[in-house]
Amino acid sequence: MGKVLTSRNDDYAQWYNDLVIKADLAENSAVRGCMVIKPYGYAIWEKIQAELDRMFKATGHSNAYFPLFIPKSFFSKEAAHVEGFAKECAVVTHYRLKNDKDGKGIIVDPDAKLEEELIVRPTSETIIWNTYKNWIQSYRDLPILLNQWANVVRWEMRTRLFLRTTEFLWQEGHTAHATMEEAVDETLTIVDLYARFAEDFMAMPVIKGTKTETERFAGAVETYSIEALMQDGKALQSGTSHFLGQNFAKAFDVKFTDKTGKLNLVWATSWGVSTRLMGALIMAHSDDNGLVLPPKLAPFKVVIVPIYKGKDQLEGLSETALRIKQELENENISVKFDDRDTHKPGWKFAEYELKGVPVRLALGPRDLENGTVEIARRDTLEKQTIPQDNIAGYIKNLLEDIQQGIYNKAFKFRKENTFEVDDYKEFKEIINNKGGFVLAHWDGSTETELKIKNETKATIRCIPLDTIDEEGKCILTGKPSKRRVLFAKAY
Amino acid sequence: MGKVLTSRNDDYAQWYNDLVIKADLAENSAVRGCMVIKPYGYAIWEKIQAELDRMFKATGHSNAYFPLFIPKSFFSKEAAHVEGFAKECAVVTHYRLKNDKDGKGIIVDPDAKLEEELIVRPTSETIIWNTYKNWIQSYRDLPILLNQWANVVRWEMRTRLFLRTTEFLWQEGHTAHATMEEAVDETLTIVDLYARFAEDFMAMPVIKGTKTETERFAGAVETYSIEALMQDGKALQSGTSHFLGQNFAKAFDVKFTDKTGKLNLVWATSWGVSTRLMGALIMAHSDDNGLVLPPKLAPFKVVIVPIYKGKDQLEGLSETALRIKQELENENISVKFDDRDTHKPGWKFAEYELKGVPVRLALGPRDLENGTVEIARRDTLEKQTIPQDNIAGYIKNLLEDIQQGIYNKAFKFRKENTFEVDDYKEFKEIINNKGGFVLAHWDGSTETELKIKNETKATIRCIPLDTIDEEGKCILTGKPSKRRVLFAKAY
Repeated sequence: MGKVLTSRNDDYAQWYNDLVIKADLAENSAVRGCMVIKPYGYAIWEKIQAELDRMFKATGHSNAYFPLFIPKSFFSKEAAHVEGFAKECAVVTHYRLKNDKDGKGIIVDPDAKLEEELIVRPTSETIIWNTYKNWIQSYRDLPILLNQWANVVRWEMRTRLFLRTTEFLWQEGHTAHATMEEAVDETLTIVDLYARFAEDFMAMPVIKGTKTETERFAGAVETYSIEALMQDGKALQSGTSHFLGQNFAKAFDVKFTDKTGKLNLVWATSWGVSTRLMGALIMAHSDDNGLVLPPKLAPFKVVIVPIYKGKDQLEGLSETALRIKQELENENISVKFDDRDTHKPGWKFAEYELKGVPVRLALGPRDLENGTVEIARRDTLEKQTIPQDNIAGYIKNLLEDIQQGIYNKAFKFRKENTFEVDDYKEFKEIINNKGGFVLAHWDGSTETELKIKNETKATIRCIPLDTIDEEGKCILTGKPSKRRVLFAKAY
Repeated sequence: MGKVLTSRNDDYAQWYNDLVIKADLAENSAVRGCMVIKPYGYAIWEKIQAELDRMFKATGHSNAYFPLFIPKSFFSKEAAHVEGFAKECAVVTHYRLKNDKDGKGIIVDPDAKLEEELIVRPTSETIIWNTYKNWIQSYRDLPILLNQWANVVRWEMRTRLFLRTTEFLWQEGHTAHATMEEAVDETLTIVDLYARFAEDFMAMPVIKGTKTETERFAGAVETYSIEALMQDGKALQSGTSHFLGQNFAKAFDVKFTDKTGKLNLVWATSWGVSTRLMGALIMAHSDDNGLVLPPKLAPFKVVIVPIYKGKDQLEGLSETALRIKQELENENISVKFDDRDTHKPGWKFAEYELKGVPVRLALGPRDLENGTVEIARRDTLEKQTIPQDNIAGYIKNLLEDIQQGIYNKAFKFRKENTFEVDDYKEFKEIINNKGGFVLAHWDGSTETELKIKNETKATIRCIPLDTIDEEGKCILTGKPSKRRVLFAKAY
């Protein structure tokens, strides 16, 4: 098996697509813009889900499930929301098919037209707040801290596997609070949670910040996001947490009686991450040989490949391999033993490199004699022969090293590709040629933001939360600015 | 809090609906036929999912995800399938809304009509076999053992929470095999797995069998099901496993090269259980006080209710309660400590009875003095005061007792309500008045089956797998029969 991927330098977009396909993560389906998530890709998503779900529950959230369909009229209730979401969406207009009289197969039955069209949810604020209206009467009913794991549909014209698909999988949290302070706290709790997940599990450093008005969620008062830098110098928004104020409570008339007996509107947040995280994970770490997975999200952390001639040799090797497998599994390290005789070791090596398995063990007849095993780590491609004794302890440490090493590499890359720029010419040059994050002053106006976007394709990814107040001049207009904001071209 | 449920004797259907609503399991949404699964109901579904998922993986299956939408033309490809599934379904015809010129809000944009309508999946055989076509070339690519957790939509005219809803959640397994034997084995493996899950986790005895031709899945060669008996004497089909033969391989032209180089059609199975299991779980065990949950599926197994006057007393009780909670959690027993001061102990007792929490501990000042705690088990409503020492061990055993006790009760009920009948008059009398399972001889013809159905509303639930060959005469026609089949009225 030779190189199966286009190299990143030759064509980054093609490299990404090749990798998603060849590593068996996902593929395009027969339905325009909808993907099939293949078992290996889905196993990574399951790891992501499990960890996030644990984190949501640890912070007091429960899961629930709301309908796939939303009555069309619900979208009109929140003015900003309808502009952002009700346009490019899948519309259900009929509920029956029938056999064509002329024998042309099945057709939509014109008699089965819905009185009101249903929209396949692009996001669920409207149907959920319409439900919360019945759940909330008193302060005793608050807070409501719910999440749902669901599929959503946004009719995208240009799609890319994981990054932008018509249907995608996500979680959407929707919380209701008695006070503004509590809702803002919740919004921040979640953006922190997302950042912790990205850094600790995806090994992907992120910058937390608030969105400008133009980039804000439709219906939000404030949108927080985490932004990651991909290897091609483009930013990828990896999660958002919205403080919705009382907008949805107003739209759906959701009020509660407080302790003093007064009627108040409820405060809201919503937040989500999606299968887009898969795209981020792939692009943040992988190389021209294939996927590089942080051990914490790898479907299996170790693969054992026996190197043998003939059935007898395999039997001897299998005994040792299965013993090692058991020792590792006793330490909660997931292991695949690939003893298939349909493929040669070299093919398997390339295959598991392509699939990003963090650690590969190769075991041959000489290893049996010497009591050794050859270890290869995926991130650095380094090989080493070590004794079989205490292999579980060794690999446990190695996996921690790899997890940390992948993070450090991504952190270093981001550091080397983050620029403080005070001159618009230099700004344009960096954005056009190098890419990366550019921290620059901005006068705070939408006009300036859009002009910069039109001229350079760079957008303000966020106003970083941990920015240092610093007097400066807007890179475009020279008007005064109090802090730098984060610019980049983005996915 | 008085009785909040209609009693089962007064109105079983109303009792069920009351219970689902009052125990906070689910409710109807603003979208006709679609339900909202509330956090407590969803927590039970999560337990069901987790266990089934573990069982699927333990039998070699992986999860994947296929699109929500299916092109209309796909349904026409398998003749029987289209008859069964493509009729009552949600049809997406447009992909955009726009603002009405006359200011009437948003309308469907007539310019955004899809060339080919998309059907919201009622089941995914067609889109999956269209995908498998590209995945399968050689015997090396087989078997494919996949499952997906997904939402599906079937446009039901009469809906009931969990039992029959327009949108529901389910898992659907879709496997591909090189030989008929392997596919039949898989079908049987899964029906066994479903039965084991129903009995060991839901504490619900089931009868495994094959469906008659009229009740078979649209496109299947053979359908196996598990059938459970509800307390009102009606049967509930709780899971199905289909041997699909080569029907879908033919329809989508899926062939593989076998070891001899010959091209063959692939063999298929599909199988599923849904949120309907929630309905089964509720109806199998619950009583007029509310839900009765088998401990293995309870969101929390134990609730501790402190009985106190004033803050000082609560503090003393809390210390002991939290110590007991910790002891139980150390044994992996989930516990809720309800120290809310907004509700009285009596209210809480009724609430947790309604919600089916298997074990309730009540702790008052006298218990502190005596080192005791009052235990109430939900299934029998028995109370007992026991020492706090070694409470974890005691409750561990108690939970096992409850799990087994609930199963035994349901098993006894089924036994007492299963009748061997050889006379059509008696058959009608039992079906009409008592309900229950009726084992009777049938001549094997669809005509007879439908006549019995029309006259009695009883259907053949299945031809039991563990039936004993026995010569007899059809209950309706007197024609010879080789075995009894299982009749019942059904949900």
